[in-house]
Amino acid sequence: MLTVFTYSEADGLTQVRDMARIRELIADKTHITWFDFEKPTPQETELLDIAFNFHPLTIDDCLSPRHQPKLDNYGEYLFLIVHEVLPESSERDFKTGEIDIYLGKHYLITYHRPRMRSLDTVKERIEKNPRAIFRSADFLLATVLDEVVDLYSPVLDQFYRKVMVLEDQLLSDQESGKNILNEIFTLKRNLSRLKQVSALQIELLTHMIKDGYDEILPVSIPYLSNVRDHLARVSDLSDNYRDSVASLVEAHLLSASNKANEAMKVLTVFAAIMLPLTVITGIYGMNFKIMPELDWIYGYPFVLTLMVIVAGGLFYYFKRKKWV
Amino acid sequence: MLTVFTYSEADGLTQVRDMARIRELIADKTHITWFDFEKPTPQETELLDIAFNFHPLTIDDCLSPRHQPKLDNYGEYLFLIVHEVLPESSERDFKTGEIDIYLGKHYLITYHRPRMRSLDTVKERIEKNPRAIFRSADFLLATVLDEVVDLYSPVLDQFYRKVMVLEDQLLSDQESGKNILNEIFTLKRNLSRLKQVSALQIELLTHMIKDGYDEILPVSIPYLSNVRDHLARVSDLSDNYRDSVASLVEAHLLSASNKANEAMKVLTVFAAIMLPLTVITGIYGMNFKIMPELDWIYGYPFVLTLMVIVAGGLFYYFKRKKWV
Amino acid sequence: MLTVFTYSEADGLTQVRDMARIRELIADKTHITWFDFEKPTPQETELLDIAFNFHPLTIDDCLSPRHQPKLDNYGEYLFLIVHEVLPESSERDFKTGEIDIYLGKHYLITYHRPRMRSLDTVKERIEKNPRAIFRSADFLLATVLDEVVDLYSPVLDQFYRKVMVLEDQLLSDQESGKNILNEIFTLKRNLSRLKQVSALQIELLTHMIKDGYDEILPVSIPYLSNVRDHLARVSDLSDNYRDSVASLVEAHLLSASNKANEAMKVLTVFAAIMLPLTVITGIYGMNFKIMPELDWIYGYPFVLTLMVIVAGGLFYYFKRKKWV
Amino acid sequence: MLTVFTYSEADGLTQVRDMARIRELIADKTHITWFDFEKPTPQETELLDIAFNFHPLTIDDCLSPRHQPKLDNYGEYLFLIVHEVLPESSERDFKTGEIDIYLGKHYLITYHRPRMRSLDTVKERIEKNPRAIFRSADFLLATVLDEVVDLYSPVLDQFYRKVMVLEDQLLSDQESGKNILNEIFTLKRNLSRLKQVSALQIELLTHMIKDGYDEILPVSIPYLSNVRDHLARVSDLSDNYRDSVASLVEAHLLSASNKANEAMKVLTVFAAIMLPLTVITGIYGMNFKIMPELDWIYGYPFVLTLMVIVAGGLFYYFKRKKWV
Amino acid sequence: MLTVFTYSEADGLTQVRDMARIRELIADKTHITWFDFEKPTPQETELLDIAFNFHPLTIDDCLSPRHQPKLDNYGEYLFLIVHEVLPESSERDFKTGEIDIYLGKHYLITYHRPRMRSLDTVKERIEKNPRAIFRSADFLLATVLDEVVDLYSPVLDQFYRKVMVLEDQLLSDQESGKNILNEIFTLKRNLSRLKQVSALQIELLTHMIKDGYDEILPVSIPYLSNVRDHLARVSDLSDNYRDSVASLVEAHLLSASNKANEAMKVLTVFAAIMLPLTVITGIYGMNFKIMPELDWIYGYPFVLTLMVIVAGGLFYYFKRKKWV
Repeated sequence: MLTVFTYSEADGLTQVRDMARIRELIADKTHITWFDFEKPTPQETELLDIAFNFHPLTIDDCLSPRHQPKLDNYGEYLFLIVHEVLPESSERDFKTGEIDIYLGKHYLITYHRPRMRSLDTVKERIEKNPRAIFRSADFLLATVLDEVVDLYSPVLDQFYRKVMVLEDQLLSDQESGKNILNEIFTLKRNLSRLKQVSALQIELLTHMIKDGYDEILPVSIPYLSNVRDHLARVSDLSDNYRDSVASLVEAHLLSASNKANEAMKVLTVFAAIMLPLTVITGIYGMNFKIMPELDWIYGYPFVLTLMVIVAGGLFYYFKRKKWV
Repeated sequence: MLTVFTYSEADGLTQVRDMARIRELIADKTHITWFDFEKPTPQETELLDIAFNFHPLTIDDCLSPRHQPKLDNYGEYLFLIVHEVLPESSERDFKTGEIDIYLGKHYLITYHRPRMRSLDTVKERIEKNPRAIFRSADFLLATVLDEVVDLYSPVLDQFYRKVMVLEDQLLSDQESGKNILNEIFTLKRNLSRLKQVSALQIELLTHMIKDGYDEILPVSIPYLSNVRDHLARVSDLSDNYRDSVASLVEAHLLSASNKANEAMKVLTVFAAIMLPLTVITGIYGMNFKIMPELDWIYGYPFVLTLMVIVAGGLFYYFKRKKWV
Repeated sequence: MLTVFTYSEADGLTQVRDMARIRELIADKTHITWFDFEKPTPQETELLDIAFNFHPLTIDDCLSPRHQPKLDNYGEYLFLIVHEVLPESSERDFKTGEIDIYLGKHYLITYHRPRMRSLDTVKERIEKNPRAIFRSADFLLATVLDEVVDLYSPVLDQFYRKVMVLEDQLLSDQESGKNILNEIFTLKRNLSRLKQVSALQIELLTHMIKDGYDEILPVSIPYLSNVRDHLARVSDLSDNYRDSVASLVEAHLLSASNKANEAMKVLTVFAAIMLPLTVITGIYGMNFKIMPELDWIYGYPFVLTLMVIVAGGLFYYFKRKKWV
Repeated sequence: MLTVFTYSEADGLTQVRDMARIRELIADKTHITWFDFEKPTPQETELLDIAFNFHPLTIDDCLSPRHQPKLDNYGEYLFLIVHEVLPESSERDFKTGEIDIYLGKHYLITYHRPRMRSLDTVKERIEKNPRAIFRSADFLLATVLDEVVDLYSPVLDQFYRKVMVLEDQLLSDQESGKNILNEIFTLKRNLSRLKQVSALQIELLTHMIKDGYDEILPVSIPYLSNVRDHLARVSDLSDNYRDSVASLVEAHLLSASNKANEAMKVLTVFAAIMLPLTVITGIYGMNFKIMPELDWIYGYPFVLTLMVIVAGGLFYYFKRKKWV
Repeated sequence: MLTVFTYSEADGLTQVRDMARIRELIADKTHITWFDFEKPTPQETELLDIAFNFHPLTIDDCLSPRHQPKLDNYGEYLFLIVHEVLPESSERDFKTGEIDIYLGKHYLITYHRPRMRSLDTVKERIEKNPRAIFRSADFLLATVLDEVVDLYSPVLDQFYRKVMVLEDQLLSDQESGKNILNEIFTLKRNLSRLKQVSALQIELLTHMIKDGYDEILPVSIPYLSNVRDHLARVSDLSDNYRDSVASLVEAHLLSASNKANEAMKVLTVFAAIMLPLTVITGIYGMNFKIMPELDWIYGYPFVLTLMVIVAGGLFYYFKRKKWV
């Protein structure tokens, strides 16, 4: 589906559906035009080649949506790939969709397979106040990028809540073993992915701001710079969260070693006290004919006393070692 | 609340309360003026737009105080965000508040929600000696930043004391398990945050010193450079403390493994000595009709001697292995 | 074996077998020529020196195929070494073969010992549509590099599947001890190698794109840039997989420490409950003449009850400690 | 105490004590003068302000000696802070003292609180051969820095010896637990500090060499470069030693886990062999009226044989598992 | 011992022994001369000062051979320090010797204490074909450096073999405890040293290639570049091997924790099965007058059956937990 918005100070906003007019708009420098390709048909995709005459490598990139964010300069236009967070994405499965973007001096082309929430929002904002958005093609792009980046915030919040939940579970001792480890490592991997995607897009924006492309007007720089600041926050926080997760793993190991020590001490104290007593009772349970102690009147109390002394002595010894 | 101080060599210091005069001061190049917005009302905030005509993105940043420190150049003025340590901040919960700053050639604007201790101090210093502070707008800014950075030192000291306390607790064996881990990881996270905030502000100051903005006079550079040196110390020390905390965790693991080994050895020695004795006593506790040893006159002393020899032999063996 | 393809707009594609014509082609600037040396004989290799007059260091590099990817500029021509994934390569044994490449303005020379799949594919594509490939010598090179880099993708997929298999094995507890460790560390080493090879080739391509060599036409830059993007994906993903493998090792350690704790607790509970019971039975198994309890009518039930109470008490104690 | 040496080709070396002459020397471009402030009195410190007219920020830095090494350029003069190793410094407590230095074209000022060994050495060398040292103010500075850096070598040697001692103690098994950990982490922290101080001073020297200050003559560059090489060695070696210490900690953990395994195996073997024997003796120690085995003539030898077989079988089993 | 080779197209190669002629050669721009100082006497060393008039700092460096590789430019000549692998060096004790080198436009000076294998090889090659080597002073240097770097390869191979041996030992379970740890950490330290030395020499070569010194002719650049490539391989491989060693340590820890778990489980199963049986036999070994079971006809078989059931039940329980 191809949606085309065109705007000029004189004519205001028009949504164009007539294909002939669409082809005219490509060369029309008096209008600013946004071509949005959503779930494009092969015929629509062909327009990129036939009508716009874009470089075949960029069209290849549009057709095979498995690329990292990037920015290529083809002189007449810039070609960008940015990643938007998909609605089904969560902290368990962080998923982004690719938007391929061509930025010319008088047009913006967005090309994407799934419906994108950011673009829907931009369309709504255009319909409310076209003049505020259609200042220039690059300002339109800055608006799109702003909405794309805004969608990273809820994901960050999800990650943050998950970190908190895991922290609680680990420190409150309710570890369910393998499951929690699985969740920790899934979280870690998704945070790495988030960090990577945002870092690549920060780089892309830095190039747009610094490299002085003709397509980017100086007046739009603060808006792009603002988008980059938001992404920098995403990137910094995902680093922070990854540190927190790493600390969780460390804390888990430390608390496991503490618990093992405690169990070991309990075991040692029990065994060390009980085993000598067993030996003592064993001795007087032997069936030798001649065992003088057995005939003593106070033999039994004597042995019981001995056992209490041995046990008490060992207990006192471990007490002093702070094992009990 | 909007506080306005204006100063000129001729007129000296005046605190202005009349709104009409305030509006005049914006364009008055013969005076240096400081506008301090504290807990600003919406009407006061509107001044930024209407009276000063600042870029809408900077006003957005003022309104939503969740940004990292940064520096943006808008030609006519610089826009800075710096972070001050809040009084309720501690090593358990490191908290900073945002001060948004506009620096023009003849004015300084500070915009912040909570009352800021640094700005109070600057106001006191101004009232004592306005001439020393109002040399230029950027010198006024350097003074503000100096006071902001000074407030990081007590926090660093708190962190240092906490590291020392944790070190003592861990090495003196009084670990209370989970609590201490919690404290260690809280400390680590706060030190990371401190490091991040100071690193971003060092970067901001480096840009102010190096990038040759019109608003920064050469004569103020040493003062900004001095502020940066203080921040560099904060940043270096927070790195050091983080290393110390990491060493603490390592030390804890090492000492835990030492203790586990010790307990394991004690257990092994006890079990290895007592279990054979139990078997021996068990043998002579059996009720077989025909057990010649039971009838020997010296059967009992013989078995006791045997037990002493077995126990002594094993003890000697473990002694040689340095387990006891 | 030396295969030579030459092409000009006028004459179209010719495969040359006549050695005299081959020597002519070296200087012929009206044709674009590709010389492919496969398992070259010493006589063929000599051509590099005699006919092409290449720098002896480059010929040394061709003869001793143990180099890292690199790019050297010899003014008249560029000398490149790139690495292709060999067909026998797998995630257990990642193997690459070296292609030495000379790029002049009108010729491309590829020199390699084993048969290379990428070059076979390029030959097929040339035979189908020579015009599309023989635009220029550097475009031909870009095509070769594209095919070389394409062969990294299946290896990446193999690595990915192996990571998944190891993850399943480790988390499903079917560790077969040493074997799985061996596989993990083999995988890690091969991922490091993949990362290293791709990083070096990214650097090489960056130089080709940025350094403005005469042999590289501006029109070919996007194609080289495209190859570099693919390599960047290989490099990023191999980093990701290495992180995943590192997490696996960590997960394994964590789950091992969990299991050790569990076993330790089971042991402690058993020993702590059974050892006191053994002592009790031992006491009443002693053979003292005078042991009043033995004569009590309810002595036996009393002791059994005592044992139940002791065992129950200890069990309740460990239950409250959440050890059972 | 203020010591002043002044030198000119014509007049040779003079030590000046007369305050009036000292003030003259500040402006005297025909002499090279070294002003050394040691444990300066407030009056002496005031000279920096009144007589030399130095920037107030540098005087602040002199008065509060808690700075990292740094270099500031004030146009007329350079201001440096360098750190000298104090004599009471050791590998247990690495301590440096601050020397604040002003370098003008015709003078060098050193300002420090404790007596500094490096400056004493320079004074001795001056008295022996003033001409060799007073080539220029910056050569004098290079000489001072050389002596300062020379004092790092004995500290490095101390650190090295300590690493060796700890290595021996750890690997020879004489760990005294907490003490050695304490020493390891103290050493690590001091090595970090040494690394940090030397890295900052390398940076300072690099600026002096590269930035082309008027105060630094080209002919002095090799001498400063030589000082930097020495510091680079200090920095590299302190990195090496830190690696060694980290390896020590790792080695300790590994050897602890080896020992725990060994102890665990000994315990397991003992328990696994002895416990079944205890059960067997327990069985024939039961007092059932009807137990046919008890009446067998060879009952007792049979049971003893059974016990030997059980023990031998288990021992053989553990032998094959290489646990004994 | 001072060996002097001089060469010119006209005169061919001459080995000069006459001291007067040697002094002439220093200024003779028609010859290329190599002065090799081996185990130099103090008189020979003095030549550097008196005859060549080199900077005293470089002579100091020659006299105290404890420097890292470096390159200093003294205008008229370059001064280099490079490190050659000594023949007694092995993977247990990696040792390098220092060669101090002066490179002028018409001469090369090598100064070293021990005999150096690389220089011997160069001398042999000179005697076979002086023309191939004496193209220029810097080509001679490139030849020397090539031979120096070639000697790193056998050391790398030794390290590789050692890594393989350690891998086999660790994974085949024949750990001899402390010894193997000692070897691992020695290997790691030597690999670090190798990495450091090669990295510093790569840097040195990069400066020679990039900085455009007068002493380095463009035609020699490919040869220096070739030497750098070899060093890069040394550096990359030593990184790889260090990674492998680190993996070994990790593998060792993992396998140790696996073994500890296994031993723990065996112990737990044995103890958990045997201890209850001991209690049962203990009960019926008590000597109470009234114990009805003892008088039952089937008391003994009943108890035996009970014991089998208890043991079987526990065994089945641990079987299901996969502990046996």
